[in-house]
Formats: sequence, structure tokens, C-alpha cells
Amino acid sequence: MTTTIDGLQYAKWSEKIFRQMRQGKVDAVHVTIAYHENFRETVANIREWNLLFERHADLILHGRTAKDVLLAKETGRTAIFFGSQNPSCMEDDIGLIEVLHTLGLRFMQLTYNNQSLLATGCYEACDPGLTRMGREVITEMNRVGLVVDMSHSAERSTLEAIEHSTRPIVVSHANSASWHPARRNKSDVVLKALGETGGVLGFSTYPHHLADGPACTLEGYCTMIARTIDVMGLQSVAIGTDLCQDQPDSVVEWMRCGRWTKNIDYGEGTASAPGFPDMPSWFHDNRDFQNIAEGLRAVGLRENEVRAVMGENWLRFFETNFGPKA
Amino acid sequence: MTTTIDGLQYAKWSEKIFRQMRQGKVDAVHVTIAYHENFRETVANIREWNLLFERHADLILHGRTAKDVLLAKETGRTAIFFGSQNPSCMEDDIGLIEVLHTLGLRFMQLTYNNQSLLATGCYEACDPGLTRMGREVITEMNRVGLVVDMSHSAERSTLEAIEHSTRPIVVSHANSASWHPARRNKSDVVLKALGETGGVLGFSTYPHHLADGPACTLEGYCTMIARTIDVMGLQSVAIGTDLCQDQPDSVVEWMRCGRWTKNIDYGEGTASAPGFPDMPSWFHDNRDFQNIAEGLRAVGLRENEVRAVMGENWLRFFETNFGPKA
Repeated sequence: MTTTIDGLQYAKWSEKIFRQMRQGKVDAVHVTIAYHENFRETVANIREWNLLFERHADLILHGRTAKDVLLAKETGRTAIFFGSQNPSCMEDDIGLIEVLHTLGLRFMQLTYNNQSLLATGCYEACDPGLTRMGREVITEMNRVGLVVDMSHSAERSTLEAIEHSTRPIVVSHANSASWHPARRNKSDVVLKALGETGGVLGFSTYPHHLADGPACTLEGYCTMIARTIDVMGLQSVAIGTDLCQDQPDSVVEWMRCGRWTKNIDYGEGTASAPGFPDMPSWFHDNRDFQNIAEGLRAVGLRENEVRAVMGENWLRFFETNFGPKA
Repeated sequence: MTTTIDGLQYAKWSEKIFRQMRQGKVDAVHVTIAYHENFRETVANIREWNLLFERHADLILHGRTAKDVLLAKETGRTAIFFGSQNPSCMEDDIGLIEVLHTLGLRFMQLTYNNQSLLATGCYEACDPGLTRMGREVITEMNRVGLVVDMSHSAERSTLEAIEHSTRPIVVSHANSASWHPARRNKSDVVLKALGETGGVLGFSTYPHHLADGPACTLEGYCTMIARTIDVMGLQSVAIGTDLCQDQPDSVVEWMRCGRWTKNIDYGEGTASAPGFPDMPSWFHDNRDFQNIAEGLRAVGLRENEVRAVMGENWLRFFETNFGPKA
């Protein structure tokens, strides 16, 4: 029986989407519960998730360990794992790392696009690497089993996080920069270092991360995945669609501008196209994961390789990285 | 009538200290109301100050504009101006700049010793200059008249703040690095740029910023001031004692460690001398300002120069920088 795990989604969550997850046989999803929300606001979002878990107990469950993925499979549900795309949720308090982990957080990006207290985001002009606090926080994340995610971080910070962390880290949603040189995609240097340390890359379907944008072909996407296996090794590649389903454009403004500017920052968009771009034809929502699996077979991946990419690599990563070191 | 203004103090405030301010004929003091306190905690500190203003209305008043210094002089009191030594008080919210100004904040350091969301502190290994958010925040500080203070910032960030700010900035408490190469003291390059843009340096008496530490002579200190006048121009030099009176050692730990590390960081201290160092013999508290004035005369400063350093430069700076641009 195959396992399907998505390394990142951020949707306007609803019963409709949870039913689509079941239709697509998605066993687990890492969901973003906070961008620029502070601790209290993140708790409010967790409170909303608790309501969703209660109301839709037939479709989803709160995932805390890899065993919850197996429980989800056995009971025909989807395990939801929490993550934050910025360290705003821990504010300036290293003591909140353990508190957030206890509340269920399993991934935290050290930065979104800007400089944080911990590291540098990919939109800053200059990246001096991890800060003093960043090193302390990674050590604490390693201790409790909160996974370091460098999806939106700049190159030097990412390499230093890989080096400083005593446990593997992830880039939950990005693609190869040698395929499509977006600021958010990762260089072969980063991908190699990530692979060598047991880290995982989740391949994104967000059009700004795709060669040719919404027109990117499934074959092109899957060929990039096959080439990235050559760079990182099979065990380090997975899916992280970055699916932003049913969100209003106001949400993309919150993601990009938070509270750091009084002006509009368009991030990966432009003034003429400020909202969410159209998704590629072969991936609109959770029902389309089999398209990707078929695309991988079509470019020559063997069945065990397809299974590794579609879920088994994430599952193995979850098994050893969501709590204190065994 | 001379004017005496201190560009920075952080004490365990008490009637005793306010009486010493009066004995020393100190007309105004920029006091630190927050280090790592977040917005709500900063408001709690302002609430404590409101109680002090109410209880000791015969000794102190809340300073908001330069006119309050004159009012303090006329009524035999000391005007207290609020500042923060880290941008924690604004959290990640540019909208809090105006709110904090309305509450009375007149100075905000863009960093304490570490990297902040805005700029780099002097204890980081690498300084990439102002962040994207840092530029936005300086623009907003310029708009409302909240003064940028780079006392604890690293070199490139300080130079970029001077350049990016459309209004003069300050280094409220530090000395010349060419005299004593402490991390917190400023290079001649910074001092020159600060002077050329109408900024002000407040000379510190904190022993870690003094050549020979607590053994620094008054003559040595005043000779450094005279030399710095040659670098910056007379109009840009003032006093900012960094007096940390009556504080327990736990406060120095809060200043240095905040909530960013679970370990002890000794900052300018050491494991064997973690607390506050002894003050130099010629400056223990607010009653000793005349020692500095006499020391300046003894190294050859004329009376108008002594007056400029002891208070008139700060007063002129206050006149044009504590509100929207005229």
C-alpha cells in the first residue's frame, strides 16, 4: 500500500478540502498554521484547528508522530501536522520552542522572506548567515524535535543551518534553482548538503517556483525531480506542493507584508499580478497527487522510487525527527 | 544658566535617585524604559513611570518635547524622556512606532547587542547592514519623530542608518573606539558620519567603555572628549553616562540574555566578573555631573564648549527631533 504525504499546504481549510484529501488518498499533510502570527495569535489558530479536528473527526486527525500517519491510513483519514513559515510564533523567547512543540508544532521556518531574529530570508540583499540567537534556537529545536525548515531562507543561512543542526533539516517546499532560478528555489550546493545530512526537499507546485509558471508541463516537473534525485539521492526527495487553495488575495498580502511595512510588497508577484497565480493543469488540489505519481513513472522512475518520492521518504523522516533524539 | 542633560541612564528608579538628580542640577535624562520587553511589557513599564510621575511630581516630570526641559528648569525638576534599547517594544509591527511615540517614546535603538529584525548588533560576527524592515521602520520613525539610536549596533548597520535616515540620529551612550577599542565604542568613520549629519554622541561613563575601566582618570576621559570634538565638531558631542544605579545583577542578566538563549551570555563582562563593574571615582551618580564639567575645563575647553557638551547640544537636538518635521 502506497503512502502519500504532502510536505506543505496552506489552504482556507474546509470540509470540501478535507474530502478532497480523502479522494486523493493523502495520508498526511504538513499544514502552515502561522506566517507572521505571534505566539498568542498562533494559539488562536491552533484553537481553530482543534475545532476542525473535533468537527471532522471522520476525515482528519492531529498528527504528532509518524504513528499518526499509520493510524490515519488504517482509519481512512488524513493526519495534519502543524508548521509555521516564520519564527514569529516564538517571538523572541527561546522557551517557547518547547511550548510550541507540546502544542503540536513539528516544523518551523527560521525565516520567511525577510531577516528574522534567527537567520536571513531569501529577499534580503545580504545574508550573513545564522545569528547568535539562531544558533541557540536550532540547538533547542534539535533537543525537543521541532524540525528546522529553510524553505524561504537565503543561501548562506541555509547552509549554516544544515551545518549547525545536529539533526537533519528540511526545505519543505521549493524546487531546484538550476531548473528554474527563482529566489525561492535552491542551488545544487544547498541540495547536495541537504541530501548528505539526511534532510528532505519537498518539490513545490507553486507556479512561481515552476519553469514556465502555470504552463509548466508535468513532464518538465517530473524530469526536474528525476535530475534532483541525481543531486541529492533518492532518500531526500519528496513532495511539498505549497498548495494555497481557496484563499482570498488578502491572505497573500498578509504572507508578503505581515506588519513589517506600510507599503505593498509584491514578493514573487507583481503590481499587475498581485494575487495567487493559476495552478498548473496537472495539479489543482489534493485529488491530483496520482497525476504526479504517473508523471514520475512516465519519466522512468521505478515503482520503489515513485513510492519514496510520494510519501515514504517523508514518513521515514517523520519517524525519527518529531521528538527528542532516541 | 547652564543646562545639564544626560543622554542615557538605566537605574532602579527611586526617590533617592530623583533627589540626586536635583542635587546634581540635572535638567533632563533620557531613561531606558525597556530592553527586551515586548509591547505589552513596555506599556507596563510606562504604567510604573506614570506612578512615579504622580508620586514625585515635585522632583520629576514626563518629558515629551524640548519645552519640557525648560519647564523642568523653571520649576526645579528633572524632565524624564523615554527610550528603548532594543526594538522588542515594537515587536514585528511597524504600526507600533506611532503608538509608542504617542505614549512618549523618544528614542529607540534599532538593535541591542544581537541581530534584530531591523539591523545588526555589535556582538554578531557579521553585519549585513539594515534589513528590508529596518529601512521601512527608519522611514516611519523619521515621520513621527522617534529618534534612531545606534548605540549598540554594528558598524555597517550604523553607517547605513545614518545614510538612510532623513533626520539626524544618535549614539546616546558610547565612546570613541580609537581611544578604547571596546565593541560598543564607535570608529572615527562612524563618528565623522554622525557629526556631518547633525547627529549626537553621548559620552559613556560605563567602565567597560572606558580606557583602564574603573581606573580611568577624569583627565583621560575629558581628553578623549576634546579629541572627539576635533573629529565630529562641537555641536555633536554630549553626555550619555549609561549610569546603571542600584540595579541587582539579575538586571544585567536580563540586559544581556533577554529570552534569546538558555545559556549565560556575559556580554561585556566575564564569568568571573558577571555583574556591574565599579564606576570610576569621579562619576558615581547624578550628583557628579559638575566633576565632568570641571574636567572639561581642566583640559582646556572654553565655557561655551563646556555648556554645549553638558547639555546645550542635547537641548538643541531635542528641539527639532521629537515630533514630525516642521
